[in-house]
Amino acid sequence: MLQVIAREDAIQCVETCAARLAVRTEVLPLRCACGRVLAQDIISERAVPPFDRSTMDGFAVCAADTFGAGAAIPAELAVVADIKMGEAATAVLSRGQCARIATGGMLPKGADAVVMVEQTEDLGDLCLCYGAVAPGANVTRKGDDIACGSAVLRRGTALGAGQIGALASLGVRQVPVFEKPRVAVISTGDELVQADPTDGQICDCNSDLLYAAATADGCEVFCFGAVKDDRAQIRAAMEACLARADIILISGGSSAGAKDMTVGILRELGTVHFHGIAMKPGKPTIFGTVGEKLVFGLPGHPLAAYFVYRTVVCAALQKLLCLPQQMPIGSGRLLENIPSNHGREELLCVRIDKNGGVTPLHTKSGILSVLTEAQGYVRISRNAEGLQKGEEIDIYRL
Amino acid sequence: MLQVIAREDAIQCVETCAARLAVRTEVLPLRCACGRVLAQDIISERAVPPFDRSTMDGFAVCAADTFGAGAAIPAELAVVADIKMGEAATAVLSRGQCARIATGGMLPKGADAVVMVEQTEDLGDLCLCYGAVAPGANVTRKGDDIACGSAVLRRGTALGAGQIGALASLGVRQVPVFEKPRVAVISTGDELVQADPTDGQICDCNSDLLYAAATADGCEVFCFGAVKDDRAQIRAAMEACLARADIILISGGSSAGAKDMTVGILRELGTVHFHGIAMKPGKPTIFGTVGEKLVFGLPGHPLAAYFVYRTVVCAALQKLLCLPQQMPIGSGRLLENIPSNHGREELLCVRIDKNGGVTPLHTKSGILSVLTEAQGYVRISRNAEGLQKGEEIDIYRL
Repeated sequence: MLQVIAREDAIQCVETCAARLAVRTEVLPLRCACGRVLAQDIISERAVPPFDRSTMDGFAVCAADTFGAGAAIPAELAVVADIKMGEAATAVLSRGQCARIATGGMLPKGADAVVMVEQTEDLGDLCLCYGAVAPGANVTRKGDDIACGSAVLRRGTALGAGQIGALASLGVRQVPVFEKPRVAVISTGDELVQADPTDGQICDCNSDLLYAAATADGCEVFCFGAVKDDRAQIRAAMEACLARADIILISGGSSAGAKDMTVGILRELGTVHFHGIAMKPGKPTIFGTVGEKLVFGLPGHPLAAYFVYRTVVCAALQKLLCLPQQMPIGSGRLLENIPSNHGREELLCVRIDKNGGVTPLHTKSGILSVLTEAQGYVRISRNAEGLQKGEEIDIYRL
Repeated sequence: MLQVIAREDAIQCVETCAARLAVRTEVLPLRCACGRVLAQDIISERAVPPFDRSTMDGFAVCAADTFGAGAAIPAELAVVADIKMGEAATAVLSRGQCARIATGGMLPKGADAVVMVEQTEDLGDLCLCYGAVAPGANVTRKGDDIACGSAVLRRGTALGAGQIGALASLGVRQVPVFEKPRVAVISTGDELVQADPTDGQICDCNSDLLYAAATADGCEVFCFGAVKDDRAQIRAAMEACLARADIILISGGSSAGAKDMTVGILRELGTVHFHGIAMKPGKPTIFGTVGEKLVFGLPGHPLAAYFVYRTVVCAALQKLLCLPQQMPIGSGRLLENIPSNHGREELLCVRIDKNGGVTPLHTKSGILSVLTEAQGYVRISRNAEGLQKGEEIDIYRL
């Protein structure tokens, strides 16, 4: 019999151990850092934009010179300069003067606004302004986007397009990121083959399932393959994986039956922290450490293995990379009752319609294909006797 | 002046042209296909599981033999076989007989259910069952997960962990996917440098921003770099990119001013389909084709360029890869009024709190850093005079 603990306690235990695992960092060219996680705060060494900049084609002016101007009575300003793109604006405007400027041009001294070209008439030496502008109109001030010395991005930020763009605007060409966590995946079971099963055999899908999930989550994944239910072979596989990875995911043989050898081997190699989570699916889960390294014994049923990966293993990855904890991706209204009375927290795949209606996708044990149509999962507390139709529930990422 | 069209019309035009662009397909090993898009329907050539399978350690029985059994009066069954994992179950049970079986074992002929080991007492030749089971109990039937001959996954499915796992369970080791769309990115502007700007210069961030976005969306991206506002140089850059990519993104110079050369060059090289979208930001957008290839002239302002990428360019990518159209990622309640009265559809970055409250992130033109804190964007119809606090609004992916 397994001594189950609550999912929350399992996650806390895993996070504590993950915090002890040293994660190396590396410096990558900016473009190679897409999808990686920042290992240090980035403090801006310059302002963006680095000078007051026009956001329009038009004329740089002293706004006060345009006050009272309108369609009938234009302001008349002397054109004293052409601001060249990419060059310092050396002109200094006096009252009554203006300078031609293009979008992105540097505002000359003495100017505090831009009149857009559509509101002007360019007479060469003279510009007629048919509208008044307030100070700051059509101008991005130096540092408006990013102030010099500010913390632009914090350690633990996942670098998406917006972050990469912001770093580029600062002229940052290299960034310190966490190395990809190294994950090894082992499947166990005498019945497993890679293809062409004969009677009694099935295709190993956990290797590919966990490979794909951990790869998508930013890990460097190594698949050891399927191992027979043989103590020596499983131990050898675990030792080989411990030599080249920091996190081992070994699926199958994670329960407490005669053929469930993972927990015994793990006790020989290191420490078992828990064996059993009060969660359905996912009850037969083992977590242990060998030195600093994290070893997860996952259920053989692929959907159960996936739920344990998504909840418990991902908590370790997030801790490792200083990423924020898993939050719901949204919420919705249940379209039907879900009975549940297990004393175990239940996780259930769901489909979400356009109007936020949530339909549970019930499945028998051992079914994986539900993952191909699910858009998220919901949790039913182990104290609740199910959920009622119409209830608003949080939806989590699958 | 630009002749603007509605975003919906722009997207339709882009989709029509994208549909004409032939996308090559390639066959990849399953694990390399993570994140790619399926180019053909996958029809299962076998059932999963391929035989009736036990989901528990216990005894395979004829359920009828257990009817009436309970804690006080067990059913007594003769143990006639041990089912070996990974081997065909050759035994044929008669009434009153049972076989030892482990989780995942093949159900022998004559058995239609499994009694879990916890409900039995194993006396060697005899098994006492202290509970009744219904036919089908603790059994996954052949084909329960995937029926033979069924369409498991459709062309145009993005391959995530669930899909990869389902294909592996079928023994599929190679999959046909669309080749990554080849995208080239050009920035234009005399003021652009890659790093260390002096007065009047700024760092080119659009190259990296668009590189990161298109890479994350599954494209093979080539950055040409920043080109001066020089007609011959821009034309040469476009021709070089057309030679090696199917989609060109050229930012800056997309309006209708004297220095906006993209539209003229595109007219020389091919066809301009529209110039201007009734969208804020993103109005100065050009779309054209050269042969089958798609050319997008994006605004120079990075946030505007990004919004045009996310809405219009992504519509082309989705069409190309047969992916479903962009849908909201959720909805929320507005925490403040948003005024808007532009006659243009407005797109606005938002932050979403735990309770689904939506706060708009207002920015001036030319600001990019808002993307680092936004969690999505909302659309304000060009016919609406803004949105009211408390309104429920759709949120789209940024």
